[in-house]
Amino acid sequence: MHLDTAQLAALAAVLETGSFERAAVALHVTRSAVSQRVKLLEERVGQVLVRRAAPCTPTEAGQALLRHAQQMALSEADALRSIAGSGAGLAPVRLALGVNADSLASWFIDAMAQAAEPTPGAAPPITFDIHVEDQDHSSELLRQGRVMAAVTADPQPVQGCQVVRLGTMRYRALASPAFMQRHFAHGVTGTALAQAPVLVFNRKDALQERFMRRIARRELAPPVHWLPSSQGFVAASLAGLGWGMSPDQLAREAIDAGHLVELVPGKPVDVALYWQFWRLNVQALQRMTQAVQQAAKAALLP
Amino acid sequence: MHLDTAQLAALAAVLETGSFERAAVALHVTRSAVSQRVKLLEERVGQVLVRRAAPCTPTEAGQALLRHAQQMALSEADALRSIAGSGAGLAPVRLALGVNADSLASWFIDAMAQAAEPTPGAAPPITFDIHVEDQDHSSELLRQGRVMAAVTADPQPVQGCQVVRLGTMRYRALASPAFMQRHFAHGVTGTALAQAPVLVFNRKDALQERFMRRIARRELAPPVHWLPSSQGFVAASLAGLGWGMSPDQLAREAIDAGHLVELVPGKPVDVALYWQFWRLNVQALQRMTQAVQQAAKAALLP
Repeated sequence: MHLDTAQLAALAAVLETGSFERAAVALHVTRSAVSQRVKLLEERVGQVLVRRAAPCTPTEAGQALLRHAQQMALSEADALRSIAGSGAGLAPVRLALGVNADSLASWFIDAMAQAAEPTPGAAPPITFDIHVEDQDHSSELLRQGRVMAAVTADPQPVQGCQVVRLGTMRYRALASPAFMQRHFAHGVTGTALAQAPVLVFNRKDALQERFMRRIARRELAPPVHWLPSSQGFVAASLAGLGWGMSPDQLAREAIDAGHLVELVPGKPVDVALYWQFWRLNVQALQRMTQAVQQAAKAALLP
Repeated sequence: MHLDTAQLAALAAVLETGSFERAAVALHVTRSAVSQRVKLLEERVGQVLVRRAAPCTPTEAGQALLRHAQQMALSEADALRSIAGSGAGLAPVRLALGVNADSLASWFIDAMAQAAEPTPGAAPPITFDIHVEDQDHSSELLRQGRVMAAVTADPQPVQGCQVVRLGTMRYRALASPAFMQRHFAHGVTGTALAQAPVLVFNRKDALQERFMRRIARRELAPPVHWLPSSQGFVAASLAGLGWGMSPDQLAREAIDAGHLVELVPGKPVDVALYWQFWRLNVQALQRMTQAVQQAAKAALLP
């Protein structure tokens, strides 16, 4: 079975822009042309591919075809560039990437800026589709085919992916001096940790639990503030709402100024980060891989 | 039909902590006790309530019962406090709240810190469960019963909710001077806007589109970087990746330093924000509502 390129492009545009209207504008065709192409593709494979909602999202089958469409688009961009001898005037190449919030809030934008830096005559421009996901779960995005590469704590290569080690993010358990005084005046014991409010990014964030287990050697259930924001974490620690694990990249200034202190000095939790990416010989992904390695080397511990 | 309080508490703990193990620790019972209570509740209502996964998530029926369990918990906390005459030693009250990323990244943490400020002898402590959602979509979280209050752009009261106006967040279309030179040297025209890379938070973020429509008076499809991070937006604008709409609260410093400039000076997009909250006469929610109004008044335009 061969799939129609224009139909795949319509599917990709709907899923990338989130609506049939925006897809039509992006493809310079009418809304009904987009709608018809997607419908024909759905009839061809015999499955619903797009959940019609605001925004439109892919079904499982839609996800698989989107991955295929994206790989084709990457490879086609390279082919056209070789033929044309230059990337000038070519449509941008879209890179869907997974990244943990703390990397995005600290060093990852540098890598994006460097990879997207226009190199006239050399390569088509890159646009990004950034998915934020916990480092312990971002390899799942690769497995689902929702991204082409990801910053992850998972060193096991996902099928079809290559892995490079990026370095280590060092997390410290931090709180304001007033919070320390109120909750840990008699030391950071298991009993004190079981009472003191703790900040946790979301249900996937196990860093605070890991730290507590090292101190208490048992499961604790302190009051939890769920707060899915990297800078929000630092701000909430500063405001005395709770203690939480923040990376040096985000907390350094507050630590140096004495506004945040370590619960237990010299007990950081180190998280090794990896870059997993589709084993595809395409230029945009190679440029991004280089930029990620460089930016990570400058920002992370070896 | 009456529902068992211990079973509802088990359901709420599983859904709030994301796992049966953590729920067991939080409730000081065994994992199998938690599991059995949830199962009995599921048999009682004849529906699956929890999707067993990592993390555990509610089914639609589970969501409805969770809302009921949370309302009960809030109301019970008030009752116990009246009887005890003080909040000392009482279990914390959990507030599930929806907030847009830009508010969370700027003024909302202040409100949380103020509401949670311990007032010995007065009230049980508050813990937060923060859900980040676009201001145009956060009222949906209220409708689904996933949060008890939300910062939203929607002034229409959700059923069972009360609404107060918080003020206005002023967004400006911003880019680095180098980006302006490269893409808008001949003015911010429809043609130039159709070519220049634009930052968009996610598929729900319509701010950039709103700005472009005001300039071009037609639908445009420029290259898009999808970037779901408030500070990432400012950082990516500074790095020259694209232009994007950022609120004064986050961009003020970069604007004052000349590192970011307005695409069209004096053409901000104003977003009025509201606080919608469950019409429940419970203390924790009232304290939070007061704190939100105060912090918003200090940070937003009237």
